[in-house]
Amino acid sequence: MTDLYPQSLRRLIQELSRLPGVGPKSAQRLAFYLLSRDKAALHRFSEAILNAKDMVHPCPICGGYTDESICPICADPRRDRRLLCVVEQPRDVVSMERSRSFQGVYQVLGGAISPMDGIGPEQLAIARLLRRVDEEQIQEVVVATNPNVEGEATALYIAGLLKEKGVAVSRIAHGLPVGGDLEFADEATLALALADRKPM
Amino acid sequence: MTDLYPQSLRRLIQELSRLPGVGPKSAQRLAFYLLSRDKAALHRFSEAILNAKDMVHPCPICGGYTDESICPICADPRRDRRLLCVVEQPRDVVSMERSRSFQGVYQVLGGAISPMDGIGPEQLAIARLLRRVDEEQIQEVVVATNPNVEGEATALYIAGLLKEKGVAVSRIAHGLPVGGDLEFADEATLALALADRKPM
Repeated sequence: MTDLYPQSLRRLIQELSRLPGVGPKSAQRLAFYLLSRDKAALHRFSEAILNAKDMVHPCPICGGYTDESICPICADPRRDRRLLCVVEQPRDVVSMERSRSFQGVYQVLGGAISPMDGIGPEQLAIARLLRRVDEEQIQEVVVATNPNVEGEATALYIAGLLKEKGVAVSRIAHGLPVGGDLEFADEATLALALADRKPM
Repeated sequence: MTDLYPQSLRRLIQELSRLPGVGPKSAQRLAFYLLSRDKAALHRFSEAILNAKDMVHPCPICGGYTDESICPICADPRRDRRLLCVVEQPRDVVSMERSRSFQGVYQVLGGAISPMDGIGPEQLAIARLLRRVDEEQIQEVVVATNPNVEGEATALYIAGLLKEKGVAVSRIAHGLPVGGDLEFADEATLALALADRKPM
């Protein structure tokens, strides 16, 4: 039935369905929504996309996203520079900051080691991390890569390299999500939550 | 924590969160995804949006979306012009066509009667519908407005006007969705499915 769509609409639906979490049905819904808005709104929308791409770049220190010469976290004199948190992606910095529990600084790796996708340590900012540990007064590196196969492999790899340098290395804890339900927890998470149990 | 985002990224997230079904969290995810793509891809994306808006316009006959002078359905000589289906939005034409069960032509109303939103019959293509019934050889009007309060009110209103013209008017049936489960059906649907039961 795709030939019922005008060609330009078909192309828009195609482009929209590349977005993460957007299937063919939502792409269609988004396309019809966009067509229902006026031209000025659509110009604003596409300008917001292109402008963000033009302005936002990785912070030269940590690799987080910024539109200034240095990101606000690296530029903040109140942050504890002895504590360095390693994350995979710029968005992970935002997630960590949202927890309001980390006062240190960051290093974004740009991904995780994944031989299947051809991503090895040299594709990531691991050399940069090691250099920072050598040159800065870092006492502890908190490895906050994702709790999946690639993230764990990356965490182990980094921990191995960092231990040679005599810096403390820690990994964020596994366990049950707050507000979660035992019934819905998967076995692996539950096993780790049990293993990491704390005296009350 | 919003001040952690660069301004241009914040603006992009704002724009994205206006999309239907996109909450603040998915807007963020979409924004980071867009930033991770290269400039050429983003230009293609925003061009697809603006191009669709430029090219696509309502068919002068039925009001469905097209990028030609007349939409492919109105232009198709094999369609049964005695049968006219009334829908609310251009996207509803696509839904109907997907069912492959309707061989007639369409009239898009542009919405449904909704006094709460200030939408009365004069904001919709109801005069156009009446004119078509007068001028064309229409024998039956199938009212396929949405099965909600506004859609039902609109269907009743249209049926009243059309009956004076001596044309047959029908309404698409209510009932249980195919593949649905009695357990999850709401009472109103179930009541209608029961009332509309058919001999086996």
